[in-house]
Amino acid sequence: MRASVLVEPGRIEMEEREVPSPGPGDVLVKVASVGICGSDTHFYREGRIGDFVVDRPLVLGHESSGTIVAVGADVASHRIGQRVSIEPQRPDPSSEESRRGLYHLCPHMQFFAAPPFDGALAEYVTIGSGFAHAIPDDMSDDAAALCEPLSVAIAANRKARVTAGSRVLVAGAGPIGIATLQSALAFGATEVIVSDLEPRRREMATEFGATAVLDPREQDVTGLHVDAFIDASGAPSAVAAGIEAVRPAGTVVLVGMGADEMTLPVHIIQHRELLLTGVFRYANTWQAAISLERSGRVDLDSMVTKRFPLAEAEQALNADRIPGSLKAVVRVQE
Amino acid sequence: MRASVLVEPGRIEMEEREVPSPGPGDVLVKVASVGICGSDTHFYREGRIGDFVVDRPLVLGHESSGTIVAVGADVASHRIGQRVSIEPQRPDPSSEESRRGLYHLCPHMQFFAAPPFDGALAEYVTIGSGFAHAIPDDMSDDAAALCEPLSVAIAANRKARVTAGSRVLVAGAGPIGIATLQSALAFGATEVIVSDLEPRRREMATEFGATAVLDPREQDVTGLHVDAFIDASGAPSAVAAGIEAVRPAGTVVLVGMGADEMTLPVHIIQHRELLLTGVFRYANTWQAAISLERSGRVDLDSMVTKRFPLAEAEQALNADRIPGSLKAVVRVQE
Amino acid sequence: MRASVLVEPGRIEMEEREVPSPGPGDVLVKVASVGICGSDTHFYREGRIGDFVVDRPLVLGHESSGTIVAVGADVASHRIGQRVSIEPQRPDPSSEESRRGLYHLCPHMQFFAAPPFDGALAEYVTIGSGFAHAIPDDMSDDAAALCEPLSVAIAANRKARVTAGSRVLVAGAGPIGIATLQSALAFGATEVIVSDLEPRRREMATEFGATAVLDPREQDVTGLHVDAFIDASGAPSAVAAGIEAVRPAGTVVLVGMGADEMTLPVHIIQHRELLLTGVFRYANTWQAAISLERSGRVDLDSMVTKRFPLAEAEQALNADRIPGSLKAVVRVQE
Amino acid sequence: MRASVLVEPGRIEMEEREVPSPGPGDVLVKVASVGICGSDTHFYREGRIGDFVVDRPLVLGHESSGTIVAVGADVASHRIGQRVSIEPQRPDPSSEESRRGLYHLCPHMQFFAAPPFDGALAEYVTIGSGFAHAIPDDMSDDAAALCEPLSVAIAANRKARVTAGSRVLVAGAGPIGIATLQSALAFGATEVIVSDLEPRRREMATEFGATAVLDPREQDVTGLHVDAFIDASGAPSAVAAGIEAVRPAGTVVLVGMGADEMTLPVHIIQHRELLLTGVFRYANTWQAAISLERSGRVDLDSMVTKRFPLAEAEQALNADRIPGSLKAVVRVQE
Repeated sequence: MRASVLVEPGRIEMEEREVPSPGPGDVLVKVASVGICGSDTHFYREGRIGDFVVDRPLVLGHESSGTIVAVGADVASHRIGQRVSIEPQRPDPSSEESRRGLYHLCPHMQFFAAPPFDGALAEYVTIGSGFAHAIPDDMSDDAAALCEPLSVAIAANRKARVTAGSRVLVAGAGPIGIATLQSALAFGATEVIVSDLEPRRREMATEFGATAVLDPREQDVTGLHVDAFIDASGAPSAVAAGIEAVRPAGTVVLVGMGADEMTLPVHIIQHRELLLTGVFRYANTWQAAISLERSGRVDLDSMVTKRFPLAEAEQALNADRIPGSLKAVVRVQE
Repeated sequence: MRASVLVEPGRIEMEEREVPSPGPGDVLVKVASVGICGSDTHFYREGRIGDFVVDRPLVLGHESSGTIVAVGADVASHRIGQRVSIEPQRPDPSSEESRRGLYHLCPHMQFFAAPPFDGALAEYVTIGSGFAHAIPDDMSDDAAALCEPLSVAIAANRKARVTAGSRVLVAGAGPIGIATLQSALAFGATEVIVSDLEPRRREMATEFGATAVLDPREQDVTGLHVDAFIDASGAPSAVAAGIEAVRPAGTVVLVGMGADEMTLPVHIIQHRELLLTGVFRYANTWQAAISLERSGRVDLDSMVTKRFPLAEAEQALNADRIPGSLKAVVRVQE
Repeated sequence: MRASVLVEPGRIEMEEREVPSPGPGDVLVKVASVGICGSDTHFYREGRIGDFVVDRPLVLGHESSGTIVAVGADVASHRIGQRVSIEPQRPDPSSEESRRGLYHLCPHMQFFAAPPFDGALAEYVTIGSGFAHAIPDDMSDDAAALCEPLSVAIAANRKARVTAGSRVLVAGAGPIGIATLQSALAFGATEVIVSDLEPRRREMATEFGATAVLDPREQDVTGLHVDAFIDASGAPSAVAAGIEAVRPAGTVVLVGMGADEMTLPVHIIQHRELLLTGVFRYANTWQAAISLERSGRVDLDSMVTKRFPLAEAEQALNADRIPGSLKAVVRVQE
Repeated sequence: MRASVLVEPGRIEMEEREVPSPGPGDVLVKVASVGICGSDTHFYREGRIGDFVVDRPLVLGHESSGTIVAVGADVASHRIGQRVSIEPQRPDPSSEESRRGLYHLCPHMQFFAAPPFDGALAEYVTIGSGFAHAIPDDMSDDAAALCEPLSVAIAANRKARVTAGSRVLVAGAGPIGIATLQSALAFGATEVIVSDLEPRRREMATEFGATAVLDPREQDVTGLHVDAFIDASGAPSAVAAGIEAVRPAGTVVLVGMGADEMTLPVHIIQHRELLLTGVFRYANTWQAAISLERSGRVDLDSMVTKRFPLAEAEQALNADRIPGSLKAVVRVQE
């Protein structure tokens, strides 16, 4: 099979590899769509994210969909032929975290495209059968792939305790910010304010339903008194200002990955008894993701601004530099 | 002022009464709309609900809106002229329950139209200033009055832990059932199944967004595997069947008032570790109610099927007998 | 190996069986102690509990401890020689319930001594390695076995939201009631009232720390205004009275298994907005159980009132008829 | 009456003042004991804490007990003569925060000894009747006063979600650290590790039940894998290290007031999805505080290391400089 491989920082090559064989409990998926995430681009350009270092060839891509073409031992054969959205996690089910329902925090996790584990920019991948989620016939391959960033957004909104009538501030209108905005509305928020430096991104936020958008250089958010602030920017200044925007006993959720350390206004956290937490992946989100997409409450297809064949995966990784780009998708079989 | 008074079971009379004077912390509201609730009709016909007995003349009505025309001591005068939705509760703020944020469970509660406390079917009422919630200019008087049943529905959905992607079963498509259905959708439920015996009510449920409706005599609900079951019927058979419809660790919320006792399938509650609770009024729901109505996520005006002047309050109390009726409203000043 | 087998209701026989072989991920445990539970005795006498029917020979016993003597594939060999407390559950880790951290509610559960799955009254058993919990050297075999009923009690107290300063009512002072009482104190309850019909059991409750005991035929509990009521009696009258003992917004947890249906005072549940739920087994309790026992906060050894060798398992199953009996234990290797 | 007044930073004077008159809903308390808090000492020495500035004479002291000697309008006269522990808060019960059960976060709070509101270092004070909590006869005046710092500790343990079997790290063994340690044990923690720079304070932590103590300069805490870390030191280095000590999905609670800003390891918070929050006062803690003290689960009297008459309040404010001092108390009537 063909695979797009990051052989060293800045260099992607197509390789011929053996089709993997599904182990016990696994399924083999013929990959259809792979969304490109900022972390893929970061690995491609920098060769590392924090402690994750690309020190040998790596297949990128963790937002993916496809069709089950074979099953390993202990998996029902009726699954062959199912179209699926792939949840790119391989936790150890016997870890303490997995048993507590927090499998995404399992210390033995093998996650797609987190070195040294290969991702989905290849014609075939294997995954645990429970992590290959069947999708309805009328869901597109792209939307099925984007259930992954949607899952990040769902996890963020759950942690932010967004519910009917909530007022939410989202910093950053990139793909995660837009998915977070859409999810906040799906969770019942009646006010979702999105801040971003770029006018084009603010426009997109408005198109996806933001009730207000703002340029943080021109408008102060600190008096907004929102129920929740979700950071999808990773910018220390956005985080510090966003914390001050939250009402007493409200919530701060950090999604965007940024610096290892940040200087935070802890006196605000203390005086208002804010709850601050972070999102690192997700657990038990896929059924909600599929339901939200199917019911029309979130629109994933419209987030795709550009599509590439597998042979042009490197262009897809650089698509963030195209003005107006939001999400690039690789169509593996085209 | 004129007031519509239940002088004895089955007999309503118009009386002239003194306009009440707002005490410290209170406002005086000129009443605009009053929704008629099943409990009003029940008091009118039977003279009692459980321990609440009408043993002296009582003004009915606890779903109301109006305009502040005077304020008591300690209330800012700028509130005069505000249009408001009335939360019909007068708890003791120093009770243990109030201090824990559960003021609706305060043992010293004085609630509109719960004997011996008068309700809103009169030209003027007083209420604590914090319980007179300002509404936007473009919200109708009727919608403002119906924030009360909407609050019951919001409380039910909170207790049912309805969130994005939830599957919910609602038994009963009367006013509370319809408000619960609308609220469930506003909380992010992507599937809301409504059961009712009457075809016309099932039709209304469909019009208000139910993803499925059913006649419980013809369709078995016990295998639905929903996340939450909310009973707005008060029918023991609906409650017993609904409990069996819930997935392990799901939620059962009893809203409809029925018999004092019910025979419940406790082995299902135990084996599935269901959470069962009840809703008795609400706390901290009004801002959400107003936001949901304003954002268009719930439609209260369309729930009003008939309007009456104050002089015809008795007809309004009997409007449940009009085929196709959902909610009657009394326009007090007309 | 020798196994004590329920060949038909009322008849226990010792059989020679093959020592089981640990499958992948399993360990082989040489059994030390097995506590006798009321459900074992019920199966022995009646041959069924609800839908669980003994229709072929069954090894009873699900409260057990022992020493790992062999490991299956994928299990570290250093575990051989460890003394362990056995959590008698075999869920499917890929089920929806398991992934949500509710593995005890997994529909594919294989539970010790729940027909058709054999239990621990045998010289050797296998169990998943993650369900064989290492215990400290100074913990007795009996205490290690009784981590199972303690887990039921921990699960009940978690669901009852017992915390520092709580007031708790426990109905029933059998083994689960006593474990629940001890756990409530360990969770920080400062008042734990225990009701039981038998004077000897009330005495035991006092010895294990109850702050008050009562005979429900002589004392009315309905005005107690406790934060939580935990039923470990299964008696409908105790459940109905206990519900009325709970303060507004308090909790009711049903542990004792009784009739399939019960007539409950739903108007109390509704008017006080009580939370009612049940306990069916447990998840993620073992580390807490071991810690509570090791820190001296609960005393499991003192709960053992009688010990039997494996050959006398039938006497152990009848030990509940010995006056003053609380918990019988079978010492398998003696 | 006599009052001890901070007339300017560093200068305390005894003044004669009028005995205050209890307003509607208030009680007049003849003060018995007043504990000295680090914040009192800080105001005394520095004249400010953050935005709270002493710009006119201020009576210090917010940990207090006494006897009700008169009541205002709307308060039952049978309360006269009751010995009480004072919860030193005066929130506005109609604020949004109060109605949600978070009265301590009320923006209109009038808190004892937070400028410009006077505290309890005087012969008489008034307080809302619901904030004067009756105590049992056998509870000492000092213990009743120290229900205030105990309430801070209870609030911290609630937010830290400490429960039966928890492992907790507490940084700082001053009065709040010791109260937090004792409370953690009362909440069921089976391991409480206390860090402090001073050997004498570590000794005290051991005496009050710490299962381990450590000097953070000599021992690294980052691998402790605790369920919760509670900071009662305010030291940025302790906070940063403590965050790294917490297991995935664990909790960090900041109690100690320190700098306005801190540099925090946000990548740890994100990767482990820690929950970080702060404690600013408390709500609904007093009944638990009294119950914990009465049941012997916490020992407040032993925390008092020195007692002073009112005339020596200034020495009490400087008692933190006495080696081995933990908590100084002013006996107002002596």
